[in-house]
Amino acid sequence: MAQNIYDDPEFFSGYSRLPRQTLGLAGAPEWPAVLKMVPNLSGKRVLDLGCGFGWFARWAREHGAASVLGLDLSANMIARARADTDDPAIEYRTADLEEIELEEASFDFAFSSLAFHYVEDFARLVRRVHRALTAHAHFVFTIEHPIYMAAAHPRWFTDEEGRKTWPVNRYSIEGERRTDWLAKGVLKHHRTIGTTVNTLIRSGFAIRELVEFAPTAEQIAENSDLAEELERPMMLLVAAQR
Amino acid sequence: MAQNIYDDPEFFSGYSRLPRQTLGLAGAPEWPAVLKMVPNLSGKRVLDLGCGFGWFARWAREHGAASVLGLDLSANMIARARADTDDPAIEYRTADLEEIELEEASFDFAFSSLAFHYVEDFARLVRRVHRALTAHAHFVFTIEHPIYMAAAHPRWFTDEEGRKTWPVNRYSIEGERRTDWLAKGVLKHHRTIGTTVNTLIRSGFAIRELVEFAPTAEQIAENSDLAEELERPMMLLVAAQR
Repeated sequence: MAQNIYDDPEFFSGYSRLPRQTLGLAGAPEWPAVLKMVPNLSGKRVLDLGCGFGWFARWAREHGAASVLGLDLSANMIARARADTDDPAIEYRTADLEEIELEEASFDFAFSSLAFHYVEDFARLVRRVHRALTAHAHFVFTIEHPIYMAAAHPRWFTDEEGRKTWPVNRYSIEGERRTDWLAKGVLKHHRTIGTTVNTLIRSGFAIRELVEFAPTAEQIAENSDLAEELERPMMLLVAAQR
Repeated sequence: MAQNIYDDPEFFSGYSRLPRQTLGLAGAPEWPAVLKMVPNLSGKRVLDLGCGFGWFARWAREHGAASVLGLDLSANMIARARADTDDPAIEYRTADLEEIELEEASFDFAFSSLAFHYVEDFARLVRRVHRALTAHAHFVFTIEHPIYMAAAHPRWFTDEEGRKTWPVNRYSIEGERRTDWLAKGVLKHHRTIGTTVNTLIRSGFAIRELVEFAPTAEQIAENSDLAEELERPMMLLVAAQR
């Protein structure tokens, strides 16, 4: 059973006020880069793992998806996602990605945004997704980048020349990381990029693209706070194909 | 034209005394991990890009390779490599990997150890290697890991809890990095993991495995200096297939 931090009232309250929740995909700076990885969804049955408030599920339906199944551990998230749509082709269910069971060949595209770093058994999850997808189906997901997650105490510091710098330690020591983000002791699972990539390959996926998200010059011109994202990647975007 | 630091007398003198030069593959802690990626070489025509003193070329011949072409920018390296073998099936040539031309479908395996981070135009090089390989041929190489290379001033420091830590900044700003290692101002070219992987995929290679080298418990028991390599990866090992 994964830690259900999203149903912690303090966490949920803070999370609900983040730009990416109040503004949806427009509040997620990585979204234009993710969009380039998402194939044409026309007529496709879409699986969204860690669907949150359902921003991607609704976007997928607006872009031709035949149906969307959105899964999330958080009952709060699912309740809000259900309240935000009356589209009968979107179904939301609470589900623990650690223990998920999916019907064979029942989806034509799988997606996940910033959920898998909460999952301990990534290999099991990938095998279930591979089995649930039809031949040649795409699988696109984003996770927190392991550079961002690795250190015992990840946070900006200033180096001796005044440059914003990010500490890396424990990179090759995979496993639990606890951080205080919106609530105390949020539990995440650190994996190297190598492990993420090799787990996909060993399950039968081909790697199509890896993007270590960095903002564009245009994004930085609009929002100078994003410039620091050039110093170290916060998110890893992965496109694979069955 | 790439910087030819290996023919700088001070650099060459220091380099020649490194364990991985005096001991060969046994002095390279990543070698057991690299070996797992190298296919059966029996009867294969092998290309070694940045062959140095020829340690891998000789190993390949001892393990069944039909022939080896070793290329290196450094005339010092090539002279020493030639002096160290009388095997007529090994040929050594000086060549700049920035400007290399290779005959189509003339190799069955391509290898490179710690050379490509000196190459500015990686995409050109990968296209040339792809064209020079036969169908389904493997391509295995190691580079300095971008976590190791990214920062303006990469070096260990101690965090507030006394943990050895590595700084990351400028990760998404690809291009030249100058460091003082055996000589002043050694020029390297930083690329993200994403760029390395996507360049291979766009040239027609499939990614087979990515390993961010970390020493095993047995290696650390034998040589406790290696323990720090768990804190941040120094080398990226890549296995691809045409």
